[in-house]
Amino acid sequence: MAQKNILFIMFDQLRWDYLSCYGHPHLETPNIDYLASQGVRFERACIQSPICGSSRMSTYTGRYVHSHGASNNRIPLKVGEMTLGDHLRKLGVQSWLVGKTHMEADAEGMARLGLEPDSVIGVRVAECGFDVFERDDGMRPEGPDGAYDPRGALAYNDWLRAKGYDSDNPWHDFANSALDADGNIRSGWFLRNSAYAANIDEPDSETPYLTGRAMEFMEQAEGPWCCHLSYIKPHWPYIVPEPYASMYGPEHVLPVVRSEAERQQAHPVLKAFMDTPVGQSFSREDVRAAVIPAYMGLIKQVDDQMGRLFAWLKETGRWDDTVIVLTSDHGDFLGDHWLGEKTFFYEQSVRVPLIIRDPSPEADATRGTVSEALVESIDLAPTFVEMSGGAVPGHILEGESLVPLLHGKARETARDCVICEYDFSGAPVARQLGAGVTEAQMYMVADERWKLIHFETGDRPMLFDLENDPDELTDLGANEAYGAQVEAMYAKLHRWARRISQRTTVSHGTLRAARSSKRGLGIVIGVPEEADGDPRLTVKYQPRAGRAWWDVKKR
Amino acid sequence: MAQKNILFIMFDQLRWDYLSCYGHPHLETPNIDYLASQGVRFERACIQSPICGSSRMSTYTGRYVHSHGASNNRIPLKVGEMTLGDHLRKLGVQSWLVGKTHMEADAEGMARLGLEPDSVIGVRVAECGFDVFERDDGMRPEGPDGAYDPRGALAYNDWLRAKGYDSDNPWHDFANSALDADGNIRSGWFLRNSAYAANIDEPDSETPYLTGRAMEFMEQAEGPWCCHLSYIKPHWPYIVPEPYASMYGPEHVLPVVRSEAERQQAHPVLKAFMDTPVGQSFSREDVRAAVIPAYMGLIKQVDDQMGRLFAWLKETGRWDDTVIVLTSDHGDFLGDHWLGEKTFFYEQSVRVPLIIRDPSPEADATRGTVSEALVESIDLAPTFVEMSGGAVPGHILEGESLVPLLHGKARETARDCVICEYDFSGAPVARQLGAGVTEAQMYMVADERWKLIHFETGDRPMLFDLENDPDELTDLGANEAYGAQVEAMYAKLHRWARRISQRTTVSHGTLRAARSSKRGLGIVIGVPEEADGDPRLTVKYQPRAGRAWWDVKKR
Repeated sequence: MAQKNILFIMFDQLRWDYLSCYGHPHLETPNIDYLASQGVRFERACIQSPICGSSRMSTYTGRYVHSHGASNNRIPLKVGEMTLGDHLRKLGVQSWLVGKTHMEADAEGMARLGLEPDSVIGVRVAECGFDVFERDDGMRPEGPDGAYDPRGALAYNDWLRAKGYDSDNPWHDFANSALDADGNIRSGWFLRNSAYAANIDEPDSETPYLTGRAMEFMEQAEGPWCCHLSYIKPHWPYIVPEPYASMYGPEHVLPVVRSEAERQQAHPVLKAFMDTPVGQSFSREDVRAAVIPAYMGLIKQVDDQMGRLFAWLKETGRWDDTVIVLTSDHGDFLGDHWLGEKTFFYEQSVRVPLIIRDPSPEADATRGTVSEALVESIDLAPTFVEMSGGAVPGHILEGESLVPLLHGKARETARDCVICEYDFSGAPVARQLGAGVTEAQMYMVADERWKLIHFETGDRPMLFDLENDPDELTDLGANEAYGAQVEAMYAKLHRWARRISQRTTVSHGTLRAARSSKRGLGIVIGVPEEADGDPRLTVKYQPRAGRAWWDVKKR
Repeated sequence: MAQKNILFIMFDQLRWDYLSCYGHPHLETPNIDYLASQGVRFERACIQSPICGSSRMSTYTGRYVHSHGASNNRIPLKVGEMTLGDHLRKLGVQSWLVGKTHMEADAEGMARLGLEPDSVIGVRVAECGFDVFERDDGMRPEGPDGAYDPRGALAYNDWLRAKGYDSDNPWHDFANSALDADGNIRSGWFLRNSAYAANIDEPDSETPYLTGRAMEFMEQAEGPWCCHLSYIKPHWPYIVPEPYASMYGPEHVLPVVRSEAERQQAHPVLKAFMDTPVGQSFSREDVRAAVIPAYMGLIKQVDDQMGRLFAWLKETGRWDDTVIVLTSDHGDFLGDHWLGEKTFFYEQSVRVPLIIRDPSPEADATRGTVSEALVESIDLAPTFVEMSGGAVPGHILEGESLVPLLHGKARETARDCVICEYDFSGAPVARQLGAGVTEAQMYMVADERWKLIHFETGDRPMLFDLENDPDELTDLGANEAYGAQVEAMYAKLHRWARRISQRTTVSHGTLRAARSSKRGLGIVIGVPEEADGDPRLTVKYQPRAGRAWWDVKKR
């Protein structure tokens, strides 16, 4: 079987339930729904950390955050961590980046090992294993102290300027800002400005731009390749050009998922997150009313771009040579549970859309089906390895290949729980909670029914019954009647915490073979005398004529 | 204060209680005892894995096995792991190796990163951070399929041959073998041959050889340096030349620590270790009678060499410029608990001698004292960093600096337990137990009173009361009356298992500072409108005159 190309599409902050195939009642996404009809839609896909960089590093390394250590944005992925690019390269598949990774290079580690940042290997290490067609982390914020990411949106800004968008930073001034009635630029950074349309011709906005770049990549690429087409949107700044800006209104905004009781009785750590400025902002109806229609418009645009991309793949004969994977790095609370953003463990954040279309005949049996299997983002790297004809290196990759599910050979993954982690040690909320840098950690462990959240702060855990309380409005963590469930979930968390994750230099097969190795390299342990030993192994050590040292030295 | 040199002496398989300062009634070790009288002797020093390579990798990296992954001999330390050599080099201290490390280089990882094995950086990565004065892993076994370690004892063998020891492998044929009454070479690999004297002039045997090499190193070295003088002995082959071969007899052999009941009721995993050939051999009195006097002779020789070395340091004016650290990588069961070798968690294996003499006046207050603090081998790397004037990088090093204890500023370490790990996934005993490569793991967690052993095989834990049963003859793990103790020790194990160990690219100080950072780089999160923002941060985004995109593009 010829190796297929892999088009690995990721959106940023795309909430799982904001697609019609995942059940949104007002947001029609026929193109993504079509992809689902041609592949498998995973209903329970969980990311490994509710923050861009860490979630992605888990996806790219196929390893938990606890294993790779890049536990928040701007915490570099340490040199030496292998990524899907490294694994696929061994199989003759080149991995290319078109868009965002949120990778932060381990400059100190690279310098220690003498890796030149501009060498082929240096670039790969710095870009988490990808070769770069275009890196666009999608944001070019600039403040009084400079740019957040000096490389942000560089090529996109050049492209916009060449098209006539006359500004030092057209990414901000046009693509992510509006023009108000008085002729003023109103920044999309401010949530109420989401009600405006972005001041840009829609085909020039970020999502269509990146779609075009992916096509340009594919036109010149020689396979087999894995192309990571990684969009910034619907991530903030929440602002979208027309016609998407006017598509949705208050009548399309889903009711907020929250209760007064959950705020009144909130766990202390949850309370601290509710009390952050972003939690307070998204608890306001005016903010939700401005942001959510824009967020929906961004997703509608995403879907249209998927339509454009899929049509092009078909026209150019690539549709049946290309595995398509579509997912997100995490969701967005949008005010649910009195929270904004994503840094907590409710389903709105940790569950993501995941659709995989494998064009091979082996996958025909599952086309259009929905899988309820417990799937994690770390499953993608091993899936890509198996799809590319490789054996999954289970001593490095902690996920499971989903190929058996895609080919109808299995209905479940082997795991009995999923794990998500969040490190808030560098966040203001940690200061507020008085948590040290090793205590500002939280873990989620969830199975089909129960979700436990453990805090390293010393606070009690939270517990949710996902079956009877799918909206997660009732925290059972303080309810003694659920002690057994808490204990059972802790047992799963701790089995996971104890796992061997750093023995990455020797394969499982090598270890198994070592158990019965009969290689005779001369080590003899615990053998009382010559006659007791395995003759083959001890042949070199049988008694034989020798000389006394004093005779030897006298010579 | 000028940086001191650090002479970091390690013995291999030196059991903690086989020195007179640690209470051996028959084995007088006046030189090591003298060192203790000039420094601090740690009574409760615990290694991190009861196997040479893994224990050493923890000592050199300052990190638990669970963190660095080199969980048994011949499992390479993965490229990127920092070692004490890396940490000290930053402080201007060069770390040099004279002797054994048991390091296995990550050749695949080095190739992936393009590190040349013969470059300065490549050699350091391959030698776990040391520059090499002499690498001598101390063994040159050879069998029908070749040499276990083609680099083993290379320089020593050349040196012996130059002295007239005429053999392809004088390490084996002279230093580690005897000559019997019939003029036959009798290999020291066989335990009963330990009763013979090694066929070598004592000053030419390994321990004096390496002592001499250390002196040669120091004679030419420019400081500040850290010299890892790392002896192979009293590790097997258990054979020693005269006069040490005749020094000890059956009357000096301590009674074996074991009971018939512990064998009859042995935990299934313990039983499997008892049933190995080495367990069975060391359960024989004839084997103990042959081996233990040789083992004691080897230690007596070690002590005499320490006398030689200390005298030389004084004569040459180095004694007061040099911190001396003396320890071992693990112990030896010698038949106790029906076991041989070291791969289980009884005190005979996991507790090691540790003596530190800091010549600085700050340490005068503690000279000759004994510390009962819970100390681990991973504490040495941070201790060396602090002694060299550095701040301990707590985001990488998992141990604690012992300097406060040495200077009388603290009596205890901050930890409330010690951890030891053993990975037997590549050992025949795992096959016998039917354990998979991720299940053939065991963990020890111990505090001043209790020791719990957890098995990943699914078997029940073991529990010992170290206060009332210091010989660890009664396993309480199956006794329901001790459920609370089991639970309490599991809580400690699991707090440890959850620890953040891979976030090694950002310091704790940087994370703390990030909590209150007011750097204005233009990211604005959760701010409803311009008027709500921190003016300094949002100045760039205030409404200002702009143009509509259609006007811009028309231009």
